[in-house]
Amino acid sequence: MRTRAGIVGHSGYSGAELVKLLRRHPHVEPVLVDHRTDAAGGSDGIERFAWSPAALAENRIAVLFLATPAEVSMELAPAALEHGAKVVDLSGAFRLRTAENYQRWYGAGHARPDLLAEAAYGLPEFCRERIRHARLVSNPGCYPTAANLALKPLLEAGIIDRAAGVVCDAKSGVSGAGKKPSPRTHFSAVAENFSAYSVLDHRHVPEVLLTCALQEDEFSFTAQLLPLHRGILETIYFRSNQPLDSSAVVEVYRRQYEREPFLRVCYGGDMPDLHAVAHTNLCFLGVKADPESRRVVVVAVIDNLVKGAAGQAIQNMNLLLGLEETEGLL
Amino acid sequence: MRTRAGIVGHSGYSGAELVKLLRRHPHVEPVLVDHRTDAAGGSDGIERFAWSPAALAENRIAVLFLATPAEVSMELAPAALEHGAKVVDLSGAFRLRTAENYQRWYGAGHARPDLLAEAAYGLPEFCRERIRHARLVSNPGCYPTAANLALKPLLEAGIIDRAAGVVCDAKSGVSGAGKKPSPRTHFSAVAENFSAYSVLDHRHVPEVLLTCALQEDEFSFTAQLLPLHRGILETIYFRSNQPLDSSAVVEVYRRQYEREPFLRVCYGGDMPDLHAVAHTNLCFLGVKADPESRRVVVVAVIDNLVKGAAGQAIQNMNLLLGLEETEGLL
Amino acid sequence: MRTRAGIVGHSGYSGAELVKLLRRHPHVEPVLVDHRTDAAGGSDGIERFAWSPAALAENRIAVLFLATPAEVSMELAPAALEHGAKVVDLSGAFRLRTAENYQRWYGAGHARPDLLAEAAYGLPEFCRERIRHARLVSNPGCYPTAANLALKPLLEAGIIDRAAGVVCDAKSGVSGAGKKPSPRTHFSAVAENFSAYSVLDHRHVPEVLLTCALQEDEFSFTAQLLPLHRGILETIYFRSNQPLDSSAVVEVYRRQYEREPFLRVCYGGDMPDLHAVAHTNLCFLGVKADPESRRVVVVAVIDNLVKGAAGQAIQNMNLLLGLEETEGLL
Amino acid sequence: MRTRAGIVGHSGYSGAELVKLLRRHPHVEPVLVDHRTDAAGGSDGIERFAWSPAALAENRIAVLFLATPAEVSMELAPAALEHGAKVVDLSGAFRLRTAENYQRWYGAGHARPDLLAEAAYGLPEFCRERIRHARLVSNPGCYPTAANLALKPLLEAGIIDRAAGVVCDAKSGVSGAGKKPSPRTHFSAVAENFSAYSVLDHRHVPEVLLTCALQEDEFSFTAQLLPLHRGILETIYFRSNQPLDSSAVVEVYRRQYEREPFLRVCYGGDMPDLHAVAHTNLCFLGVKADPESRRVVVVAVIDNLVKGAAGQAIQNMNLLLGLEETEGLL
Repeated sequence: MRTRAGIVGHSGYSGAELVKLLRRHPHVEPVLVDHRTDAAGGSDGIERFAWSPAALAENRIAVLFLATPAEVSMELAPAALEHGAKVVDLSGAFRLRTAENYQRWYGAGHARPDLLAEAAYGLPEFCRERIRHARLVSNPGCYPTAANLALKPLLEAGIIDRAAGVVCDAKSGVSGAGKKPSPRTHFSAVAENFSAYSVLDHRHVPEVLLTCALQEDEFSFTAQLLPLHRGILETIYFRSNQPLDSSAVVEVYRRQYEREPFLRVCYGGDMPDLHAVAHTNLCFLGVKADPESRRVVVVAVIDNLVKGAAGQAIQNMNLLLGLEETEGLL
Repeated sequence: MRTRAGIVGHSGYSGAELVKLLRRHPHVEPVLVDHRTDAAGGSDGIERFAWSPAALAENRIAVLFLATPAEVSMELAPAALEHGAKVVDLSGAFRLRTAENYQRWYGAGHARPDLLAEAAYGLPEFCRERIRHARLVSNPGCYPTAANLALKPLLEAGIIDRAAGVVCDAKSGVSGAGKKPSPRTHFSAVAENFSAYSVLDHRHVPEVLLTCALQEDEFSFTAQLLPLHRGILETIYFRSNQPLDSSAVVEVYRRQYEREPFLRVCYGGDMPDLHAVAHTNLCFLGVKADPESRRVVVVAVIDNLVKGAAGQAIQNMNLLLGLEETEGLL
Repeated sequence: MRTRAGIVGHSGYSGAELVKLLRRHPHVEPVLVDHRTDAAGGSDGIERFAWSPAALAENRIAVLFLATPAEVSMELAPAALEHGAKVVDLSGAFRLRTAENYQRWYGAGHARPDLLAEAAYGLPEFCRERIRHARLVSNPGCYPTAANLALKPLLEAGIIDRAAGVVCDAKSGVSGAGKKPSPRTHFSAVAENFSAYSVLDHRHVPEVLLTCALQEDEFSFTAQLLPLHRGILETIYFRSNQPLDSSAVVEVYRRQYEREPFLRVCYGGDMPDLHAVAHTNLCFLGVKADPESRRVVVVAVIDNLVKGAAGQAIQNMNLLLGLEETEGLL
Repeated sequence: MRTRAGIVGHSGYSGAELVKLLRRHPHVEPVLVDHRTDAAGGSDGIERFAWSPAALAENRIAVLFLATPAEVSMELAPAALEHGAKVVDLSGAFRLRTAENYQRWYGAGHARPDLLAEAAYGLPEFCRERIRHARLVSNPGCYPTAANLALKPLLEAGIIDRAAGVVCDAKSGVSGAGKKPSPRTHFSAVAENFSAYSVLDHRHVPEVLLTCALQEDEFSFTAQLLPLHRGILETIYFRSNQPLDSSAVVEVYRRQYEREPFLRVCYGGDMPDLHAVAHTNLCFLGVKADPESRRVVVVAVIDNLVKGAAGQAIQNMNLLLGLEETEGLL
């Protein structure tokens, strides 16, 4: 019998991607949990029930995915945990460790600082053991997933000159802005257009600071909207603190990631594009370094709906359930 | 009687844009000059003749636009000058001042170092007087136009910490890659995709170094391909060498550009998008600065086919002919 | 002194296109008239005032464009006419001649059947004289403009076998659906997608029936949404009632349209695409006919925002004001 | 042990889609067969060998897919059959039954009229038994797949008035035009554009005539290029020869297709869009009928690379190999 995973927010982009991916999972079965606007969508032959804490147990939900706004996740996650379900939350509600940090970046108080402290940060490549033993996993933001995978190995290897600063110029497809219609996501506002938003103050910044142990003034981040549906490409600039060529940087990645199933490093100065990762849970990294000037450019790409959301959430679920980490994701 | 301007390369994107814009010019009339593949295109009621140096005089061409590859421009420009035409060259042939610099970035020898030295760099906002008195104007590259307009005032005002480096993350529409079919410009390779190319070694880099008096190791430049036809957006990162807020940086731009007809500065942290400049000769600048950390982000946008090519070429032609600089461009 | 033309609805796509085109008009000056949501938009240096009937006279508005929903036009047009302004209405309010017809296709009663009967249908190629002497011009719908220009000459020439029926398969860019955000116009719903809507019962159908004297059961019309911003292409199928080759059909068009400034007929089986008409007031027609089977296919293209809306409205205004019909449109 | 299926032409769109789909197939394993330009592509961990008839047996290839031009398929298919492999050909080489018909539509002689006569037409919904016992299956064209699935049940039910003619207005994504760069498939030629081609004389027409037993003069077909990568939508117009409402037509489809795993019929006048079928082997049908005028419109959508090419080819392979027809396709 397959383990039953509930999905709240299944009518949004990340929630729908979760349903699509879980339908192919050999050991887990998706069940739709209707909360607010979710009830409007079709179910396409999948079981569904209306959200209530008690209904989770009645419907034998072992894991609950919350593809909901942060304020909704903050309300639903505790209730689900109390009723014995493990939780993978895709919102920002449990990513920032302390209520102070949450207040600063999300501009609101946090209802459950205890769970904020308890939650495991769901970046398996660096937090695998904590995730395995967690009750509550906070799935990373899409932008920080790519940035952390690109930066953390290099920072830990000590090759980045932090004083010179790190720049992360990030570009995302429209699905990152959500399904709700707005003037900003109207076809005619997006097509043949490109624009920057949340320059230097995007909510995803603190996830990079926390994971990479960077100071805010060392890190410049800009989010930008691409005229396409899915995909994130981040172009990352820094100085190495010793003369390094491209292959030396690639070697750091190779050592870190050689056993990682979802990480790919490009050789010979090749740079990955969004097509390389579309509809996959992969992250590709490309490197160009100039030893003389110590300038380094790294390009990281992921599918924001998969490795940046639903795919990584399933990777986390696999860890929570003691399954093979790649199950349903290859 | 209207002045006659010849256009070689009128079947390419920049050449066709030149023809389109010149048809609306009140004092200048476009004439198609067929060279190689140009002969294949239609003429839509415009006069045309086959290229030969003698034919320029016979056809009373006062100004000749070369929207041709660098090696073709290097051959045609001297011949045109000898026959009395002024020349605005849209290729990279005459942008880099010395044959050594040309050899390094274009990988080829230069046939006419004398003209290379003589050519005026066609960025009117900074080289207006030289252009007025030139015979040969070298129209800037599309990327350097935006980068120089964004960086030069700030560098001259002395507010950039050069030691920390300047990053220019540039994104261009497909028209920047030219009209020739290739696997890279196939619709299915571009749509729903985004990719970086020429990381750290793009041919347009030296134009920024020369104009802004930057050292190569101070400047990191990446070019990237957007899934759209026209437009360039550059996101520029640097440290200010004193605490500055956004409005202080805006003020530097305002002072520099307040009388410039084609420059627009956004206030209050607003950031311009590509739609703001499509089909215009405008450049918009937006600023976000954090005084404490001295991080500054500038966003510059132009239409690569207008201010980045044909429009600026006409602006230069107006200066060469003693006309109002904005004629035909508003 | 330039004639002053007011624009209500200037924040929508058609209204904004009107403003853009009128700024280039040599004899007419646009003035923004704020009604409801219009007040939110920027004015970019153009005069503006708040709608009231009295304010029209105070502001010396000679012609008023209504780029508003039908129910708003029905309210504003009479008031403007009473205060001495001529009116070009871009909505469906005054297109259908009788209140019964309006009731049937728009599902609502008509407040002013007298004006409905009085209004000139603004298709200059066929109604030029009525328009010149009108007070109120009803600008045609975007789809009917292309369909009528393609069909009316052939029907009048008597070459279409009506009994076999006429099919019009129409495709439009997203701007035809308006600027209001909705799930249907969200970028991710439109990109990489194509869909049919209002099959057989589109509100634009009766305009073709009236103009072409077709019966409803002779005409099958489907509207479809293209993943692009501007442009309409209609593929029209019918049987000729005698054996005709492509050039015989082209000849009918040529005779009808040889003096028309905005009509272009393709020769030799060439078929026009949307790029041929983007940002112009042109309509291109292409023909393929098989004499043996009497099957004929006509392709008609226009820019829905220009010949399908704002451009044709200015063409009508030029006629109303006794100006050259092409003024501001070439 | 899994059955081994060779793919010639794996570097093209259909071939690459075959590889992608077969990797997920539980009983069949893809093997790349390099012929001409195929050798250039990567193999991503999949076995590969160079084409030769003998190598097929050496590499134990049970089924060979030919995703090649017709003239290449005509050469390779006989050789493969002689060496004991079954063949699914995705080109037009074996679709038209007789050499005369091939000569007329493909403008070339046919090298193997015997195989042309022998080949089973690979539309499983109508030719399942023949396919099961065939050696050579000719996979249908993308356009005819949708047209035949939409028209054949209605023609067999006798509800179409053939004398009034059938119109099929077809729109396809760019992948249908192949991967080879050309001016027509350049991003800037396709984006923000739409165009018709092969009006009334497309090579896919005879497949509909043969399958549906229609006469050429009863069928008008236009192919058109959508600015998107994958998907075909066909809007089909005809007269019913008795008064029928939409649900009566839907009922014909329902009876025909109720046990078909890949066919879906929309109810209540709903019309399917391309998103409904992207990356699936499904065909959706929508209907709108007006009983009084007997006008009927059917909309059929498929993914041209799946049900229109690689997916249907695998469906045929499953039949050839005696596997469950849906294996690897759900």
